[in-house]
Amino acid sequence: MKGVILSICASARLVDLTHEIRPQDVLGGALALEAAVAFFPEGTVHLAVVDPGVGGARRALAVRTGGRYLVGPDNGLLTLALASEGWAAVALTAPEYRLPTVSRTFHGRDVFAPAAAHLAAGVPMERLGAPVTDLVRLPVPGCRLEGGWLVGAVLDADRFGNLITSIPATALDTLPGRGELAVEVSGRPVGGLATSYAEGRPGAAAAIVGSTGRLEIFVRDGSARDALDAGRGAGIRVRRGA
Amino acid sequence: MKGVILSICASARLVDLTHEIRPQDVLGGALALEAAVAFFPEGTVHLAVVDPGVGGARRALAVRTGGRYLVGPDNGLLTLALASEGWAAVALTAPEYRLPTVSRTFHGRDVFAPAAAHLAAGVPMERLGAPVTDLVRLPVPGCRLEGGWLVGAVLDADRFGNLITSIPATALDTLPGRGELAVEVSGRPVGGLATSYAEGRPGAAAAIVGSTGRLEIFVRDGSARDALDAGRGAGIRVRRGA
Amino acid sequence: MKGVILSICASARLVDLTHEIRPQDVLGGALALEAAVAFFPEGTVHLAVVDPGVGGARRALAVRTGGRYLVGPDNGLLTLALASEGWAAVALTAPEYRLPTVSRTFHGRDVFAPAAAHLAAGVPMERLGAPVTDLVRLPVPGCRLEGGWLVGAVLDADRFGNLITSIPATALDTLPGRGELAVEVSGRPVGGLATSYAEGRPGAAAAIVGSTGRLEIFVRDGSARDALDAGRGAGIRVRRGA
Repeated sequence: MKGVILSICASARLVDLTHEIRPQDVLGGALALEAAVAFFPEGTVHLAVVDPGVGGARRALAVRTGGRYLVGPDNGLLTLALASEGWAAVALTAPEYRLPTVSRTFHGRDVFAPAAAHLAAGVPMERLGAPVTDLVRLPVPGCRLEGGWLVGAVLDADRFGNLITSIPATALDTLPGRGELAVEVSGRPVGGLATSYAEGRPGAAAAIVGSTGRLEIFVRDGSARDALDAGRGAGIRVRRGA
Repeated sequence: MKGVILSICASARLVDLTHEIRPQDVLGGALALEAAVAFFPEGTVHLAVVDPGVGGARRALAVRTGGRYLVGPDNGLLTLALASEGWAAVALTAPEYRLPTVSRTFHGRDVFAPAAAHLAAGVPMERLGAPVTDLVRLPVPGCRLEGGWLVGAVLDADRFGNLITSIPATALDTLPGRGELAVEVSGRPVGGLATSYAEGRPGAAAAIVGSTGRLEIFVRDGSARDALDAGRGAGIRVRRGA
Repeated sequence: MKGVILSICASARLVDLTHEIRPQDVLGGALALEAAVAFFPEGTVHLAVVDPGVGGARRALAVRTGGRYLVGPDNGLLTLALASEGWAAVALTAPEYRLPTVSRTFHGRDVFAPAAAHLAAGVPMERLGAPVTDLVRLPVPGCRLEGGWLVGAVLDADRFGNLITSIPATALDTLPGRGELAVEVSGRPVGGLATSYAEGRPGAAAAIVGSTGRLEIFVRDGSARDALDAGRGAGIRVRRGA
């Protein structure tokens, strides 16, 4: 993919975002994009391929949003990174912006990398294919108020074992009641809201507002994933007061 | 190695090709090079070091082939990437194109990186050392016709668990008979030739023509390596008809 | 972090040094920096974040040493890379050289990356904060003469399973006696000093002078870490003669 990009756009600067997305983990890729896109300069082309359906009926996409471009399969991978102010997208169908021969198994090289390179070289996105508006959305757990608890789920564990939850820090303001935050992971109480990883006892789990504005569960000097034996999908709930 | 390159050729653009070659896996490295080299721009210098014999008697090489350069140990690592139209090579012996002190254990830094950087900076390859023509070749399984079957072997499993075989798709045309392709892995029948990963039942193994033109074995939404408990060296055979 | 750097210093060239430091492994990061810094061009900014104490009381640092810059937490991570001819450091406190909002958990993105980018863009280090001179030093095992033995410890195993020890090759000259070098790992004799990995029998452990000038223990065509079941902290001792 990198060779194809440099062959089309010799001045492209290639930046590896992560090497840690597991095969076929579309949600993991979507969360990585969501966390990174807004921190890159305007005009950046973000190329992401987690693509279990390669060669099947899923569409290939280029998206313009928040002054940046996203290129990847239409399976939800790109949709967490869409800017709130809107977006436009095209299906990558124009043969002149693909490699001459498209393999059955490696559209990253043959379809997505050429599209990203042409965008980086200044080709208007609209030339890559026809507009589409019905992107496939990723089913992502949210959070809801239920009997005084704010209820959500673990979205992912990062490489340190921190559990990233579906509860945005802003939702904590909607909690009724007063007092300290009570937090449960899979029904088990953990510590309340810490202001740094350095707080609390080593080995004890607690909550913190993470770098993407989501509530996270961490273990000081350890791994919450391992200590709590919890991962994607584990239930999280929080309330105020004892 | 990257620091050495940038110290010699400040304008070099560094591209990481893969982080997934296992220690001492010369064949894995050779296959990665074979798959990538032709997709990079002419003039690219490909630096590859999988080097169990570092410090021993094996030679260090620079090779010019297909308008590109390869730099690495003379242990077969570079030879799958040689272009069919020919090549020229030198042994990296000229001391002025090595680091002043060459360690016993890290020729990547002290010998190969300087050579690659000098090539990138425009030094003619012939200045790096004397010509050599007898490169060490990697013993790579091929394929042969045997009793109506085309017989080969698994070369490697990729990170998704797909099994890359030694049977080129073009060899399928040499098969006698008619009808569907019958495929066996380690003597066990798997599905025939699919046209995309999205075909067939989830969990079922089948064959497909991969992105480097080799026959591959995959499992839909899974890992053929794990499902078939098969890896490098496992036997593959295919024939036409029931 | 990479997006933040490119947003501040569009011309920055990003180089990934390693993807293999384990979470919270400050010594592993310090050894990687020590091995690499001197091989990069003068003016390079080395950004390193292994930061178990993020958000706590530990300071954030920029250091100028040997014509290069180091940026990272004040927990010892940077100190093995300090040049012998001296250094100067500041604490990263100036708010105008951080991101406008600093998260509780990701100072790499919000504090360290902006500082590194501003240094790369030419901002004088002294503007980033007030000078500091009392850097936290990493407790690193050394080596000592004891009853005719030079006694040290394993600092780390590299990805090949080679054991990097705390015994510098130069210290071998201080050993009394004559004759071959006798080497023990965790009290068990291994082979003497080899001049290349290709020496000795496959599977047998021996010593060699590694690429950073330290004594290393290796196993030909294998992993000393696995073969000897030895890792960080394991005792090493060497003497002369039988």
